[in-house]
This record gives sequence, structure tokens and C-alpha cells, in this order.
Amino acid sequence: MRAVQVTEFGGPEVLTVTDLPDPEPQDGQHLLTVTGAGINYADTHQTEDTYLAAQELPFVPGTEVVGHLADGRRVAALAPRAYAEQALVDEHATLEVPDELSDGAALALLVQGATAWHLLRTAAPMRPGETVVVLAAAGGVGNLAVQLAKRWGAGRVIGCASTPDKRALAERLGADVTVDSTVEDLRGAIEEANDGEPVDVVLEMAGGPTFDACYRALAPFGRIALYGMASRTPATPIDPMDQLRTSKTVAGFWLAHVARQPRMLVEALADLFTAAATGEITPVVGGTYPLTQAHQAHEDLLARRTTGKLVLDPRQ
Amino acid sequence: MRAVQVTEFGGPEVLTVTDLPDPEPQDGQHLLTVTGAGINYADTHQTEDTYLAAQELPFVPGTEVVGHLADGRRVAALAPRAYAEQALVDEHATLEVPDELSDGAALALLVQGATAWHLLRTAAPMRPGETVVVLAAAGGVGNLAVQLAKRWGAGRVIGCASTPDKRALAERLGADVTVDSTVEDLRGAIEEANDGEPVDVVLEMAGGPTFDACYRALAPFGRIALYGMASRTPATPIDPMDQLRTSKTVAGFWLAHVARQPRMLVEALADLFTAAATGEITPVVGGTYPLTQAHQAHEDLLARRTTGKLVLDPRQ
Repeated sequence: MRAVQVTEFGGPEVLTVTDLPDPEPQDGQHLLTVTGAGINYADTHQTEDTYLAAQELPFVPGTEVVGHLADGRRVAALAPRAYAEQALVDEHATLEVPDELSDGAALALLVQGATAWHLLRTAAPMRPGETVVVLAAAGGVGNLAVQLAKRWGAGRVIGCASTPDKRALAERLGADVTVDSTVEDLRGAIEEANDGEPVDVVLEMAGGPTFDACYRALAPFGRIALYGMASRTPATPIDPMDQLRTSKTVAGFWLAHVARQPRMLVEALADLFTAAATGEITPVVGGTYPLTQAHQAHEDLLARRTTGKLVLDPRQ
Repeated sequence: MRAVQVTEFGGPEVLTVTDLPDPEPQDGQHLLTVTGAGINYADTHQTEDTYLAAQELPFVPGTEVVGHLADGRRVAALAPRAYAEQALVDEHATLEVPDELSDGAALALLVQGATAWHLLRTAAPMRPGETVVVLAAAGGVGNLAVQLAKRWGAGRVIGCASTPDKRALAERLGADVTVDSTVEDLRGAIEEANDGEPVDVVLEMAGGPTFDACYRALAPFGRIALYGMASRTPATPIDPMDQLRTSKTVAGFWLAHVARQPRMLVEALADLFTAAATGEITPVVGGTYPLTQAHQAHEDLLARRTTGKLVLDPRQ
């Protein structure tokens, strides 16, 4: 089969297509003929070996697929080695895709959907009426978090994004107010967007000074969930006594821990697929790239040129 | 009226009884004839000015009372300046005490009850089936947390305490297993008490190495709530990226933030009073001290000689 393989760590240029043996299913696995592999920001970390889990060379990147099983069923799943014509999926963590959803829509709901869902349910559980701040609100996780927060009764959803276009998208998807995430005083801007009050829930994936500012914007019993470090700059360590003094909560979230508990994963995906199929939420789909253009997809993603789910189509 | 007043910061010896003018109720306040003031560990911090909120001299210590209103109703409330014959209570944060509850029982459920309740509901919300670890499991907050965790369907409650007597009490109150909190490898002991597995929820009030060990014992999506620093040693600051890598949550909790939202306070107290009146939970009552013996109560508390709620009775 054709697959994208990384034989040395580096930027997008290390993503090249090669021929590899077809993968062989083990117990509990099925072979999937891939019609779309999702492209995630984490994949750019995987490629340069700055990901949370250390990578061993050579490897096929990617973590999520949609495609067909041997029996013809169209399913989606988390799967390693996704940038390929075929992938192995776990039968307990594989979900049928409703006909209403395109490959891109299904992929938009997988890693990013399950992340948004569990951020608001598990990591920093939101309660109806609360103020929810979403960083990168036009991004793959962020735009779904905005929609889910509204669906679950948030009192106010504040979408933070770096450009007017992205903020406009966040508003179209339901953000009550938006904030320019590049301002000097992000904490002040967030509180201003909340009538001068501190906030209840923040979903943050930049790290560094962005995290620090959002932590300071939390109200008592406020929760900030950190699920990425897109700025590649660490946040400032927090003294638990400061949290005691302020009754603040900091939650870390890595989807790998959801993936290890298929029940958690399937619960989120089943709800997301249904909500999208019935039009309650709208997955945002971006461009589709042929397998040979994986490097271009990573370049576009890193340059923040894209909006919506990027899909790699191994049939092209 | 007679009251305990602190005119210089220090140990228990600075607690002396003096005569002060009767307090005058402002709008929304009632004057309470105090029959019991609760003694809390935080009061020892107040006295030595190591409390979260800075104290101004002179002051009357204490934060919780039970007694009678002018109309004869027997009520309990959070109230500053509690170590006195009379105290001012907020009408929105005052709760009638069921006849079944003694003064000591009602006081055991106030600061400590509301803390235990909101630790498990708000700060580190537990879900049925989860493993809950309670530090100082025979203490005022701890013993109620053990009982509430069982009542709310914890899969396993692990009670940590420093002596065999305290561990025996924790077991009588429902702890499934107990751990000696003075062992060298506390993390190992906690995981051993959980069949070698990391744990879901930890309620911690010692700080320092105890907090550090408990944080390490958390499973993915595990939550540790810190609500005190009895060891007077700070915990090690935490890099949010470490939380991301491990999907761990750290929550700080200070009851003052509950007290500022009477709805949160009353919700907890109403449930606790009903549960205690019907025998679902058992408040543990310790000794009663006359007002003149406040210093002795603090000495006994600091020496860890006591078990159960300590009450100061200004009528004695």
C-alpha cells in the first residue's frame, strides 16, 4: 500500500510517500480501506518528535481515519499510522458514520470532537449558565467547543482568535462575544468581554503567556483545561497554595487517555455524530489533500492559513 | 459581652477572654445568642497570622456558631468573631438546626461539613464507582468526606491517618481501607491500598511532601483538591505541561469563596443537616471547652490530641 512515511525528524518536508506492506490485523482489529485520514496539529509535533509520546523512526504519522471495512460498513476510528491507504482499527473503538456526514465531517468530530467534548465534560466540566472561554475558537477543537458549550447551556461563550475572519467564524458558530487573542493584555480583554468579571471555564491550547493570562482570569471555582502547547512555550508552574487561596482548578488533558478507555471515546463520538447528523452542531471542513501533498497540508497548518478540518485522501 | 480577643499574634497563649460591647446588627444581619462556637484548624492560623486572609489586631477569632435568634429559633451559621457570647449572622446564610442535632453535631457540619461536601461536589467532583482518598480521614473534614464519598457511591474510600485509633475511626465511618499517612512512601501505600492502581480523587490538606506524593498517585483524569497546609510546608509547584501529559487535575479550595455565595453554602448545609438528622451520616463530636479555655482547645488541636468537633461554649 502507499503511505506517508517519516524516516528522519523534521518539518513538513520529511513527509514523503512510499510503498509499504499492507498492515496485518491482530485479535480485535479490523483492516480499514482508508478514504480519509484526518490531519491534526499534534501530527506536526509527531513529525518533529516534539510530541508528548516519543516517536521511533521510521513511522507513518496520523491518528484518525474514516473508510470502509471488508463487510462494506463505513466507519470512523482513532488509529495510528493513519496517513496510508489502509489502517488497522480497534473493533471496540470503531463507530459507524451516519450517511449525512461527509468524510471530512466525520474526521472533524474524531480527535478534535472527542477532545472538545471531554474538555467540557471531563476535564473542566461546565455547568449551565457559566461563562466559557475558548482559545483558538475557530480551530478544530475550538469551533466544536464553542458549539458544544452553547448546546449545553453556557451563559456566555467567549471565543478568542487571532484574526477578524476567525473571530467572525466563531461568532457564526455561536460565540456570544469574541476577543483578539493577540492583544497585549489578554486577561483584561477576556474579563472585559465578561462585563468586567472573571470567568468560569477556559479551554487553552497555546501554553506560555496565553495560559498564564487565562489562569489569572479565572473566578473562584473556575477551571482551566490545558490540552496543547501550540506556542511551543511552557506555561509558568503554579504553586498549589495559589490555587487554594483563589479556589482555582487547573486540568491537563491528553486525548490518548480517552483513547485507552474505548467507552469514554465511543460515548463522545456517538453523541457528536448524532448531533452533527441532525444539524445540532456543524463540523467545519477545510481542504482535502492527496497523499503526496501531506507536506503541503502541514505547511498550511503551521502557517495558520487554514480553517476547518484538513483531510488527506489516499485515493488521490 | 464576654469574648475571646487576640491583641497580639502568637500561639494558643494569646487567646484571652475580655469584655467587649455587644455587636450591632446591620441590614440583613441578626444578633445571635451563641450556645456554641466551632473550633477549626484554620483558627490556629488566624491566631498566628498565617491564615490565607491577613488579620488585623485586635480581633475575635472564629468563623461558625450555633445559638438562638431573638425569635427563639435555633440556628447555625458561618459568622466572623464567633468566640463570643453574641455574634452577627447573615439572614441568607443562616439555617435552622433540626432538633435531632446537638450543638456539637451542628457545628461539625458547618465549616467542615460544607468543606467536605463542596470538595467532593465542586472542587474535585467524584463520580460513582471512583476511588476516593481522604487525608486526615479522622479529622473534622476528613471523617465527613469519608461518609459522603460512601453515600455518593464511591467504589473505594481510602482513609489516611497518622495513628491506629484514627484509622480505626475512619473504618468505623465507612472507609474501605486505611493507610498510615506517616509512611515514607505514601504514594506507594495509597496505590497498594487500591490494588496497585492509581486513584481518581484525593482530598488533601497537609501540603508539602504529602501533597506531592498524592499528586503522583493520581490516575488519568484524577483530581486532587488541596484545602489546607497543615504541615505549614508548601507543595512543589506544578508545571501545567506535566498535567497535560498525565491528564491530571489540581483544584484549590477555600471555603471563604463558598461563604460569599450563600446559595452554595445553604445547599450544602441543608443536605448535611437532613442527612445527619436521619442518621445517614454521623457527625463526630469531641470535647466542649468553656470560653476561658480557648487556648487549651487550640493546644489540644495543634498537638493532634483530639478527635471530633471541638466546641467553645460561651455560657460556661
